[in-house]
Amino acid sequence: MKILVLNGPNLNLLGQREPEIYGAATLADIEAECVKTGREISVEVQFLQSNHEGALVDAIQDAVGRFDGIVLNAGAYTHSSIALRDAISATALPVLELHLSNTHARETFRHRSMIAGVCIGVIAGFGAAGYPLALRALAGHLRPGT
Amino acid sequence: MKILVLNGPNLNLLGQREPEIYGAATLADIEAECVKTGREISVEVQFLQSNHEGALVDAIQDAVGRFDGIVLNAGAYTHSSIALRDAISATALPVLELHLSNTHARETFRHRSMIAGVCIGVIAGFGAAGYPLALRALAGHLRPGT
Amino acid sequence: MKILVLNGPNLNLLGQREPEIYGAATLADIEAECVKTGREISVEVQFLQSNHEGALVDAIQDAVGRFDGIVLNAGAYTHSSIALRDAISATALPVLELHLSNTHARETFRHRSMIAGVCIGVIAGFGAAGYPLALRALAGHLRPGT
Amino acid sequence: MKILVLNGPNLNLLGQREPEIYGAATLADIEAECVKTGREISVEVQFLQSNHEGALVDAIQDAVGRFDGIVLNAGAYTHSSIALRDAISATALPVLELHLSNTHARETFRHRSMIAGVCIGVIAGFGAAGYPLALRALAGHLRPGT
Amino acid sequence: MKILVLNGPNLNLLGQREPEIYGAATLADIEAECVKTGREISVEVQFLQSNHEGALVDAIQDAVGRFDGIVLNAGAYTHSSIALRDAISATALPVLELHLSNTHARETFRHRSMIAGVCIGVIAGFGAAGYPLALRALAGHLRPGT
Amino acid sequence: MKILVLNGPNLNLLGQREPEIYGAATLADIEAECVKTGREISVEVQFLQSNHEGALVDAIQDAVGRFDGIVLNAGAYTHSSIALRDAISATALPVLELHLSNTHARETFRHRSMIAGVCIGVIAGFGAAGYPLALRALAGHLRPGT
Amino acid sequence: MKILVLNGPNLNLLGQREPEIYGAATLADIEAECVKTGREISVEVQFLQSNHEGALVDAIQDAVGRFDGIVLNAGAYTHSSIALRDAISATALPVLELHLSNTHARETFRHRSMIAGVCIGVIAGFGAAGYPLALRALAGHLRPGT
Amino acid sequence: MKILVLNGPNLNLLGQREPEIYGAATLADIEAECVKTGREISVEVQFLQSNHEGALVDAIQDAVGRFDGIVLNAGAYTHSSIALRDAISATALPVLELHLSNTHARETFRHRSMIAGVCIGVIAGFGAAGYPLALRALAGHLRPGT
Amino acid sequence: MKILVLNGPNLNLLGQREPEIYGAATLADIEAECVKTGREISVEVQFLQSNHEGALVDAIQDAVGRFDGIVLNAGAYTHSSIALRDAISATALPVLELHLSNTHARETFRHRSMIAGVCIGVIAGFGAAGYPLALRALAGHLRPGT
Amino acid sequence: MKILVLNGPNLNLLGQREPEIYGAATLADIEAECVKTGREISVEVQFLQSNHEGALVDAIQDAVGRFDGIVLNAGAYTHSSIALRDAISATALPVLELHLSNTHARETFRHRSMIAGVCIGVIAGFGAAGYPLALRALAGHLRPGT
Amino acid sequence: MKILVLNGPNLNLLGQREPEIYGAATLADIEAECVKTGREISVEVQFLQSNHEGALVDAIQDAVGRFDGIVLNAGAYTHSSIALRDAISATALPVLELHLSNTHARETFRHRSMIAGVCIGVIAGFGAAGYPLALRALAGHLRPGT
Amino acid sequence: MKILVLNGPNLNLLGQREPEIYGAATLADIEAECVKTGREISVEVQFLQSNHEGALVDAIQDAVGRFDGIVLNAGAYTHSSIALRDAISATALPVLELHLSNTHARETFRHRSMIAGVCIGVIAGFGAAGYPLALRALAGHLRPGT
Repeated sequence: MKILVLNGPNLNLLGQREPEIYGAATLADIEAECVKTGREISVEVQFLQSNHEGALVDAIQDAVGRFDGIVLNAGAYTHSSIALRDAISATALPVLELHLSNTHARETFRHRSMIAGVCIGVIAGFGAAGYPLALRALAGHLRPGT
Repeated sequence: MKILVLNGPNLNLLGQREPEIYGAATLADIEAECVKTGREISVEVQFLQSNHEGALVDAIQDAVGRFDGIVLNAGAYTHSSIALRDAISATALPVLELHLSNTHARETFRHRSMIAGVCIGVIAGFGAAGYPLALRALAGHLRPGT
Repeated sequence: MKILVLNGPNLNLLGQREPEIYGAATLADIEAECVKTGREISVEVQFLQSNHEGALVDAIQDAVGRFDGIVLNAGAYTHSSIALRDAISATALPVLELHLSNTHARETFRHRSMIAGVCIGVIAGFGAAGYPLALRALAGHLRPGT
Repeated sequence: MKILVLNGPNLNLLGQREPEIYGAATLADIEAECVKTGREISVEVQFLQSNHEGALVDAIQDAVGRFDGIVLNAGAYTHSSIALRDAISATALPVLELHLSNTHARETFRHRSMIAGVCIGVIAGFGAAGYPLALRALAGHLRPGT
Repeated sequence: MKILVLNGPNLNLLGQREPEIYGAATLADIEAECVKTGREISVEVQFLQSNHEGALVDAIQDAVGRFDGIVLNAGAYTHSSIALRDAISATALPVLELHLSNTHARETFRHRSMIAGVCIGVIAGFGAAGYPLALRALAGHLRPGT
Repeated sequence: MKILVLNGPNLNLLGQREPEIYGAATLADIEAECVKTGREISVEVQFLQSNHEGALVDAIQDAVGRFDGIVLNAGAYTHSSIALRDAISATALPVLELHLSNTHARETFRHRSMIAGVCIGVIAGFGAAGYPLALRALAGHLRPGT
Repeated sequence: MKILVLNGPNLNLLGQREPEIYGAATLADIEAECVKTGREISVEVQFLQSNHEGALVDAIQDAVGRFDGIVLNAGAYTHSSIALRDAISATALPVLELHLSNTHARETFRHRSMIAGVCIGVIAGFGAAGYPLALRALAGHLRPGT
Repeated sequence: MKILVLNGPNLNLLGQREPEIYGAATLADIEAECVKTGREISVEVQFLQSNHEGALVDAIQDAVGRFDGIVLNAGAYTHSSIALRDAISATALPVLELHLSNTHARETFRHRSMIAGVCIGVIAGFGAAGYPLALRALAGHLRPGT
Repeated sequence: MKILVLNGPNLNLLGQREPEIYGAATLADIEAECVKTGREISVEVQFLQSNHEGALVDAIQDAVGRFDGIVLNAGAYTHSSIALRDAISATALPVLELHLSNTHARETFRHRSMIAGVCIGVIAGFGAAGYPLALRALAGHLRPGT
Repeated sequence: MKILVLNGPNLNLLGQREPEIYGAATLADIEAECVKTGREISVEVQFLQSNHEGALVDAIQDAVGRFDGIVLNAGAYTHSSIALRDAISATALPVLELHLSNTHARETFRHRSMIAGVCIGVIAGFGAAGYPLALRALAGHLRPGT
Repeated sequence: MKILVLNGPNLNLLGQREPEIYGAATLADIEAECVKTGREISVEVQFLQSNHEGALVDAIQDAVGRFDGIVLNAGAYTHSSIALRDAISATALPVLELHLSNTHARETFRHRSMIAGVCIGVIAGFGAAGYPLALRALAGHLRPGT
Repeated sequence: MKILVLNGPNLNLLGQREPEIYGAATLADIEAECVKTGREISVEVQFLQSNHEGALVDAIQDAVGRFDGIVLNAGAYTHSSIALRDAISATALPVLELHLSNTHARETFRHRSMIAGVCIGVIAGFGAAGYPLALRALAGHLRPGT
């Protein structure tokens, strides 16, 4: 089983950026943790980050036939991107919406998700620890009989 | 470590009620699964369900000093209850907001959560499998060094 | 055929409470009238009233297997209770929404019904006379061939 | 006692039009049923249908002195017509608002009624069976002592 | 003269709960203070608290004939409960709306009161000191000539 | 100079309909008064009334080349009719919006005018006396040098 | 009969200010015209202008006992001043709301009038010619039998 | 193949009315152009115009069995008429929504279409040239294999 | 201790103005009552009233160093004045918001307070009796240990 | 004459993606069809697709001096991109807004177009067949005399 | 060249009032700084402050013929005053809108400016340093060739 | 001191694009002017422009450690980009929001800024002259003691 972990704008700054909101782990730390978790649950994990909405759309399209599902932390694009929503709808892959912070406890403009309606579920608020949780949740969804 | 799993209105009907939305597992099945997961991660789990908003407020208040955290599936009260929100604020216990279905992919009136702003995080959309996930997530939050 | 007539908050005050809006009949008078009408149309009628939202949810759940349908005057909870809505959805029983007054001719906050979307129909504005009408309408719905 | 049953736009298509929403009975079937019910409760019933808002306004004005009340299924004009509302206010006749379908369970633009505020009550969701119910309800309102 | 002081959800936690917002006095302290004030102004005071909306509705109904007025701190239910509003309208008792904190200086969802429209007045923002003030204000309202 | 006085839905009921809002004068009384005023200011006045939105649109179109301006009391259609607005824009005739009652002192849905934006001015609230005033105002507008 | 013609902010600039909207007449020209009209209809007219909301409130209060009615062109304060509204309500004088331009054909923030609800009527869009019209309308209102 | 071209309010004024928005062609010119295009693509075209909403509803109902589809320029009724929407839903005919001007580049109240949701598609902004385009588009839709 | 009692627009009319809303006491009566109460609780009271928003802002600024707190009945300016809000924020004086009537039981535009967010508390609905109550409440706030 | 056909996000998936909404034709099929239509009407057609909003802005800018007009299917960016709107305004090229599906018959967030206000017209709902239609419509607009 | 620097409500408190928002400089300090900057760029500067909306309107009117432009810090009136807006429109003077704080980073009610639409530009967020900047910007606007 | 001047979508068209709104200077002209101003105030200035939202996010991230502040004219992305807002929050650099035109005097959708809340200040409406002003303002902010 192969899962793509796709990260949106400004997530490359993790560890430097506002640690009181996003925590001290860098994206590399998180990637390492995900690979480790992947090994435990027999999932091959690949990591990608981009600040470009179009590049995220490209990545979701390219995942078809190469991955079984996507963990998507779309960052700021979560709240406005119909293009990401359409890309998710257009592919047959299950997508899990992930956030480091509890977006509903922040500014109003972070309460609306344009993509949640076409995702299988949402995990938010557990910081870096949310990534391994998301891998387990998505793997469980893909192997329900297990 | 002790965690209370608190369930709101109509969750006693699980397994009978609209299985295409909520799945086939009963609340008893889920409780058994939670106890099993609890044993794996050394967490004592206790289950409670009520259709009464006031009884849920009582339960959150009573949890102080007896539990280290709460997994709360507040069901329909999620979207309207300021009383539950105040109860969570008033206690020092970390609370995780849980939903069986992906509430953001359903009717508009299920998109707003009155309690998310005072919870540590949200897990939604993974059906019965969300409960063990929530226990792991909350335990991880309570034992960050682990 | 058995029908439950379920009454929500403050309906126990009927006859005393603002008679220019709600009329002079007490809930007991209405119950007697319903039983009489029930006899005419061969329907066994049972009456219940509670000021507690949770108790109304309980009653709807308990009606499964014991009643063929429910006449529900949810009173003030009509306009806010997602829990009642979910209880109605979760049971297979047909529910008829009933109001003594014409709610659309009153304050704006009484114009929205959270439950109408999962009921079979609505009768409003006929005072105590609405109860026998509702019984006939629901019985007709349950025995369409008659 | 004489009651006018007034039907608005597209109701002449009943029986042909979207039977899963509006049922299989034609307007002629319903008229026959109403006349029969009228005989049972000693009410003379007259039927009228028009697709023209102005014609419905005319009909309400003309009913003064010729009818004791109106059962009004204003169809699509229910949701926008202030002219119908003013016509109802301007006449001294009691008007009952009737709908075949449960308008509150349909599109949002069918949730607002411009005329409910000046009607005595509302019956909605019982299909063709709503017409005899409405006649009984209006007759009961006109003969409260009976 | 007898006045009921009725307290809503989470007010039993006073003294423990967020003292920077609600102050250090417990509900028992406040009750003692109220009884003392009552003696000074010849008013018999009775105290009640519940986390259940339905129980508050019951209490308002039961107050008829037993109390001359109610000081109501409805807590979180202030902002959503039409049932409490209806209970107040339905009884002939004057009700004073009380809040410990200045609700208009807090979150937006605490700015709207569903019950203010049927109360005689509002006192908010004076913490525990608001209770004796409210008793004096209500007593003054009941004995205007004094 | 020729002016058309065009009256919308339910204005044929004037004198009978809610005299506390609309006054005791009938439309015939008003017509007589307008003809009299017309003579004083050398304006030929013609009167028309219809309950049909389409008939009012027809009348505005037909006025081109036959009248110098229109006094339009569009009644209930004032608040919703884009068709009337387009008819006014499409003709080169100056139109004065007239109302018997002060529409801004009534229900909210009477506060918005769809046609005011394409009229030269508005007179509202002077009852039957508004008609001669409107004739004078429109005549003054058409003969500014006078 | 004495009528006060009260003018709000920036109306002292008439004749200089945006003549394509407000016309070429100065306030002095208009005053002269009003006095002339006043003589024709036996009304003593007094003129006042201020840019200060408070001064307009003072003027309305002072008019009690000295004037029989007020023609009020409140200018920009029309759209926001509850203080003017309260002053009008508090006095027993009939007030006519006047505007030079057709406010409904301008920016959205000029569509709402805070004072129309407590005025007897509105005249708008006739430029300087609106003043004599308003005097005639108000005088007619004060001498209905004439 | 037979197509009805149905035109709403004020479209009879084409050529005279605001040519900078609607162009110089008259409805007769457009009809001639449509008949010519019809001949080229073997479609029999019939033209109809009315200023009456009810007459347009009648025309759509009458088209059943006589036409294969409708090109509908509903003019101002586009933005408010639920009755037209219901008439389209109720018939099995495919309807194409047509506008001369680009309605989305005009006033806000022209941005919402009540009928687009039940039409097969929309063509707007091409003036008189939109009619032959619409005929080709609808014919193409009806003969997809061609 | 010195307290300024500051009164906004139209409050000089008290006793004359709409007594069914505001009561029969004049502002002079209230001032006398306040001085009397002040003596009882050892507070020097000074009274001020103005219809000018700017004058109220001046008064709040001038109170610094001369008064220990302000009882502010801002009247109509309560609902719109950011300038008053800023003046309160800018001074270090505690301000109590006072209203004669229960503003939440009146028109919607009186429900929003622009100043409540920077006041210590609100008292509304007790008529003239609210003034002495407010003095006691503010004095209690300034002498919490008493 | 040269026309650019510019396609936005996810349109590269055509034929694979949700064929019940977007049809079975691929973008290459559509391009071939457009070239063929171009030859018939003597228009040179060039095709471009990108998932990147910035790349679409670049393409519109680059079209100046190289193309006579643009057929723009902006996909999801239609509903949010002010940058595309500005790019269209900034160039002198006529742009036609095209959609495969009838966007007004889908989710609410697809009803608003940020670019329609600066386009010459809109064609929506005809699937792949909309492209040749759009070419003909734009060519007709560019050669009005033909 | 002469420029008026006009300051609105509470700006006389600068230096004392909330220095964390508005800085430590007094209005006199700022005036001195402006005069100094004025000398450098050959602009005569005059300073004015008032807490009265009407006085600010007067000042703008009086500036005509005496000043070449106005730097206007309207303070709290920025967000509500249509009278200031009208005064700016009515005069031919260019006005620059100035704020000490970044109003868009504060409460929502400070985000809307009623006057920006009639000003030449806005400078906000630079504290006292914004004044000399504004003088340079306005002078540059008045002497574009320089 | 080094300042990055970052320009968003369509600003590369300056000088060609709508000169009545944006002026005649090209971006190269502005860059030259900025370098000149930079020399005067001892600031090294670097220029960047992109039509890609992601590229602007990249540029802000890359500025950390290389620039002391950013002058950001985000163009159309100002009104929608949470990604730019997050990038600004995430870096420690002070950012000044700049616009050529007075955005508040244009379309409503240009009134909201998603980034103003995390910027130090805003300068808008001075065309090309705004760039040197912005450099001076930002330099002044970075060297407050100067």
